[in-house]
Amino acid sequence: MSLEPLLNPRSIAMIGASDNAGRIGGMPLELLSHFGFAGEVYPVNPKYTEVFGYRCYAQVEDLPAVPDLAVLAIGARDVTAMLRRCHAIGIRAAVVYAAGFAEEGAAGVLLQQELVQFCRESGMQVAGPNCMGLANLNTRAFTAFAAIFKTASMQSDTGCVSVLTQSGNVCSALYGLLRAQDLPVSHFINTGNEATVDFAQYLAYLAEDPHTEIVLGYVEQIRDGRRFIDACRRFQMQGKVLVVLKAGVTEKGAVAVQSHTSALAGDQKIYEAAFRDLNVIAADDFAQMANIAMLARLRHRTAGARIGVVTMSGALGAILTDRFIQAGLQLPDLPDDVQAQLRQGIPAYGMVGNPVDVTGNIVNDPQFIVQVLQALAVTSALDTVVINAPGYMLDRMAQPLIEVVQKYPRLFVAIDTGNASCRQALREAGVAVFDDLGHAVRALGPFLTWQERRRQRHAPIDTDNDLGGIDAQPVAGRVSAAGGQVPMEVPVLPCHEVDARRYLAGFGLPDPDVRIARTCEEAAALAEQLGVPLAMKVVSADLAHKTEAGGVLLSITGAQAAAQAYEQILENCRNYQPDAAIAGVMITPMQQGVAELLVGATRDPVFGPVLTVALGGIMTEIYRDTAHALLPVTHSEAVQLLRSLKAFALLDGFRGRPRADVDAVAQAMVAVGHAFLAGQPTLDQIEINPLLVRQAGSGVVMLDALLLADTAVS
Amino acid sequence: MSLEPLLNPRSIAMIGASDNAGRIGGMPLELLSHFGFAGEVYPVNPKYTEVFGYRCYAQVEDLPAVPDLAVLAIGARDVTAMLRRCHAIGIRAAVVYAAGFAEEGAAGVLLQQELVQFCRESGMQVAGPNCMGLANLNTRAFTAFAAIFKTASMQSDTGCVSVLTQSGNVCSALYGLLRAQDLPVSHFINTGNEATVDFAQYLAYLAEDPHTEIVLGYVEQIRDGRRFIDACRRFQMQGKVLVVLKAGVTEKGAVAVQSHTSALAGDQKIYEAAFRDLNVIAADDFAQMANIAMLARLRHRTAGARIGVVTMSGALGAILTDRFIQAGLQLPDLPDDVQAQLRQGIPAYGMVGNPVDVTGNIVNDPQFIVQVLQALAVTSALDTVVINAPGYMLDRMAQPLIEVVQKYPRLFVAIDTGNASCRQALREAGVAVFDDLGHAVRALGPFLTWQERRRQRHAPIDTDNDLGGIDAQPVAGRVSAAGGQVPMEVPVLPCHEVDARRYLAGFGLPDPDVRIARTCEEAAALAEQLGVPLAMKVVSADLAHKTEAGGVLLSITGAQAAAQAYEQILENCRNYQPDAAIAGVMITPMQQGVAELLVGATRDPVFGPVLTVALGGIMTEIYRDTAHALLPVTHSEAVQLLRSLKAFALLDGFRGRPRADVDAVAQAMVAVGHAFLAGQPTLDQIEINPLLVRQAGSGVVMLDALLLADTAVS
Repeated sequence: MSLEPLLNPRSIAMIGASDNAGRIGGMPLELLSHFGFAGEVYPVNPKYTEVFGYRCYAQVEDLPAVPDLAVLAIGARDVTAMLRRCHAIGIRAAVVYAAGFAEEGAAGVLLQQELVQFCRESGMQVAGPNCMGLANLNTRAFTAFAAIFKTASMQSDTGCVSVLTQSGNVCSALYGLLRAQDLPVSHFINTGNEATVDFAQYLAYLAEDPHTEIVLGYVEQIRDGRRFIDACRRFQMQGKVLVVLKAGVTEKGAVAVQSHTSALAGDQKIYEAAFRDLNVIAADDFAQMANIAMLARLRHRTAGARIGVVTMSGALGAILTDRFIQAGLQLPDLPDDVQAQLRQGIPAYGMVGNPVDVTGNIVNDPQFIVQVLQALAVTSALDTVVINAPGYMLDRMAQPLIEVVQKYPRLFVAIDTGNASCRQALREAGVAVFDDLGHAVRALGPFLTWQERRRQRHAPIDTDNDLGGIDAQPVAGRVSAAGGQVPMEVPVLPCHEVDARRYLAGFGLPDPDVRIARTCEEAAALAEQLGVPLAMKVVSADLAHKTEAGGVLLSITGAQAAAQAYEQILENCRNYQPDAAIAGVMITPMQQGVAELLVGATRDPVFGPVLTVALGGIMTEIYRDTAHALLPVTHSEAVQLLRSLKAFALLDGFRGRPRADVDAVAQAMVAVGHAFLAGQPTLDQIEINPLLVRQAGSGVVMLDALLLADTAVS
Repeated sequence: MSLEPLLNPRSIAMIGASDNAGRIGGMPLELLSHFGFAGEVYPVNPKYTEVFGYRCYAQVEDLPAVPDLAVLAIGARDVTAMLRRCHAIGIRAAVVYAAGFAEEGAAGVLLQQELVQFCRESGMQVAGPNCMGLANLNTRAFTAFAAIFKTASMQSDTGCVSVLTQSGNVCSALYGLLRAQDLPVSHFINTGNEATVDFAQYLAYLAEDPHTEIVLGYVEQIRDGRRFIDACRRFQMQGKVLVVLKAGVTEKGAVAVQSHTSALAGDQKIYEAAFRDLNVIAADDFAQMANIAMLARLRHRTAGARIGVVTMSGALGAILTDRFIQAGLQLPDLPDDVQAQLRQGIPAYGMVGNPVDVTGNIVNDPQFIVQVLQALAVTSALDTVVINAPGYMLDRMAQPLIEVVQKYPRLFVAIDTGNASCRQALREAGVAVFDDLGHAVRALGPFLTWQERRRQRHAPIDTDNDLGGIDAQPVAGRVSAAGGQVPMEVPVLPCHEVDARRYLAGFGLPDPDVRIARTCEEAAALAEQLGVPLAMKVVSADLAHKTEAGGVLLSITGAQAAAQAYEQILENCRNYQPDAAIAGVMITPMQQGVAELLVGATRDPVFGPVLTVALGGIMTEIYRDTAHALLPVTHSEAVQLLRSLKAFALLDGFRGRPRADVDAVAQAMVAVGHAFLAGQPTLDQIEINPLLVRQAGSGVVMLDALLLADTAVS
């Protein structure tokens, strides 16, 4: 279903037209007329014969031609009946302004159901309801009643930034900020209740819209995660930039979102993971979004997280260094030859390492400034150059800067702490200009991270272990670590641990030597035979909390102790839950390792299959140190995810500890992903907790495994 | 030594005067003349007879009167000689612009030493060298060569904000931003190299300056921590606001600071602790500082961290909620009666809980807006009210808002996302107005936290346990936990653990039942007698790392095992360090507890005695979860410090664990502080690691204790 009639209509009927530009039935007509929309406009209202210079029709059935789009400026109760009439004469798309639908209690929910039902039957596209409408700034097709179009300056350039929001106020605020920075807009879209067309569908349209290069989005709830993911991937493939402010990231904010629209804010950690995986820039406020859009227009310039900072002041150099490092960027030391080159003109009290303090005197020597900027434009140590100067000094550097920017593709950014008169000339030459250090840092941090992620996506796949990838599907009947083909069917759930281990082992997850004793004599014999300290654990699909049930005993040595432990475990479990079916007691040699991790997979209600990794145990909970990724993940993505844990230091030789087998952990993470996807739609959760990690080269092993059919049970 | 001649001179000589306003010897003269300084001005330069309307003298000895202050616009090599001449005719204070002193290598260091030596001998006050100078905006006494005074608008109001920085560029940038917001400035001070007058001395002056209410500071290094602490306490007592941007908070930023001025940035965690304890607002950038100054002018209004948010849009309400919560503020739910009152005028699709979404229609009903604002102005659930509205809507609310603000003392803040014409009127009525959501959040977060801390300082001391307090000094001969008077003398350092424990026990730190065995027979007899599992640890002042030496064995039961363990420990330690003097083996019953903490005290090179608390063990290191406070601390401060640890959850009944004896931990922290202060100047470090914490009511106990005379040894 193309959204062309909604977003690029050639003709528009306004039902409930008004001759008052202050009313919602009048304002869009005035905008269409004032800004010269080239298509046909048909006001509909029996009260008028003409409004804003357009002939007005008494009813929709009177129109001389079928318009692409009908805009309904009428009350909620009348909407569906009017849509029927529009559809009857061949109109395929409509915008519905009216509030009083799902956002307003039971009666409104019924009205919205009726509307949705009609759209399903008729195939009609309806934007809203409860929305401010749309605007295509490139065709001047205004169907939104937003006063900001009159108060902000109208663009003359072709628009390339689209605004897509679930709030009309936010749409207007963002449009105003973009225009204040002279950024030209392509589409203005307030989605409203999204009864039939949701955020992700608009996004998919904008991914293909030839004018839209950048989208600033505001969401309270993503209704169709799958579609959102697909649209974001289209953005990635086309090199377009998507910036999203998500409301409800705090608990209290989520309550506000819910009381405002009944939308559930979703799990913030999963949103963060999804945005990172999809290279969506998560924003905090509107000024930041507009500033990122300004930078994003320069995304054809080469840029990345390694920045060179040029100042006229050591203090400013130090301050910018602090702020950029805190924003996740890097200031690498400049190579010795570059430092030597800079030192030729920079006095001893200046700095040449990075930040570069050229000192105030230097700006009077344009020839040397060109040399400095050129050196920073070509050194392979940097990706991006940031210049901070008071206005009058920036003015003196403007010509050299423009000269260098025109010659080299690297991104240059200027922070003007005065009122430089060169700002416009710099912008035209392709320099991003900020007037506030804080604004610069908050826009550059996420934008340069976006550039880094874009580059990583385009990097060739780096190892043979990269089994995953976007299209990777698990292969049934994979060879297990122990060799031999194993069945890949999800066991009947709930299942006991032995079956869970067997299923996961089929995807390559290393399973230790597990024996099951069904009598205390068998336990004694096994202990005799293994001859090492043992872990013993009850096998039961009915006991979710085996430790609490007294079903786990560790460090058992010798036949007699094993037999005693067997009886003890059975007695404990029978006392804990008398009706639990017990299939025996698992006996495994005690395992030693560097660390114990939790590796799991679940299905997020918005984004679908998600992988989780964390250090096992209570400290991870206290410090909320868990990492998530959309499934499937590749081996290298798994390594990156693992590295993103603060606790990764424990696997990485912290304070003389042995290094852990990170590669084997990543393989296990990929395998858990495969096992989860292969188990769809039956499987709702996999949890290996703990996965024992041995030192590098010695692999990992599952110490416990759980498959669940209902995440609510966990 | 009063800084009056520097900061409030009645007459000024300019040595090295120029008639060119573009030169440093000319610019201040032009400023004095242009802005009408009322005192005497004496240019000194044999080349001129008059500059900028002032009679010019050939040499300083020719002046008709002794000026309060001489400004030296001459080269570094000539400075001290000229100071001598100034001093000879009775001048008591000078500003030295010249660079080329300590910041510029060995020769410069010598020049600065000479200058310092002369000042010591003569008692002359010298600002700088390597500084941009000073300005008293209230008397128009300009001794700074800052172009910003001409480009920024000159104030007409009496200045109340002072700018005090270690960088001239930062001084100018801050002045420009303050003036752009029409905030009037009292003093402009660029300290430069601080050869004889340092940051803290200026700060002490500004604490007493009748005009200065707010100081915006920039520091790379605090040279005299004690004086800084005292000055900050004066600010606290007078209710003045100190905002400081500290450079070098990241490792890379600290390197930049050092390469820029040779200043050592210091330990960032200690700076943060000191700023919190002294209620200094730590800032990140200049715009934030100017915005905090704007808020600080309204500090007489009642305000605090519990904010009520009013918007015309549910989305904005949710976004602001997220941002304010993330900034450490609270949005409490409004009481039911207030909600009911608001609901009388706010439609169902609006929100009344907090955030309050009054919806766009309501702004047309000024009578109801007054009711809403009034309800928020008086409810005890809130401290501060923030209103977010597009410009035209804010305009409609302006009169009601002014009416309420004039009637009630609570702080009201407006965020205008348009171009409201009421901004000036609101400001005059005492409303803080922001034009950017991000700026508002970043200023309100720290300012309202300052208000909270100010209130806490003024709160009455709340428990009998509050032994500390600013002036508290430890009392010699405190009664030990075991009863009986104990000696309070610091043992000869290095000392072994038993002596360390005895010293600390003297301050009330609970020491377990410690026995020392000096033969294996004694060990066996003690084990027999105690009859419980034991911990055995070598007693030696020479072995810093007892565990690594094999000097610790745990869970020893029975006489025979104890005798064996005794021999084993001695053998291990002799192998590890053959020459270590061994005083015996400590034997204590094994202890059970809820958690193990590290409690310690050290002497910070800037701020002096500092207390540290952390959860023991490797995870705390990984998550950098430690808390520090300037000593001494009171009992309630200790509790607060403990609560600031993320790991505090472990002491607080996390996941069904028993609650720990937090009160006893706080008592131990206070006691460590006393023990450290009493041990000055001998003692450089105390470390109790671990302090075993038992469940509530069961106290704490030292499991290991260390006293050091040289922190470098740890």
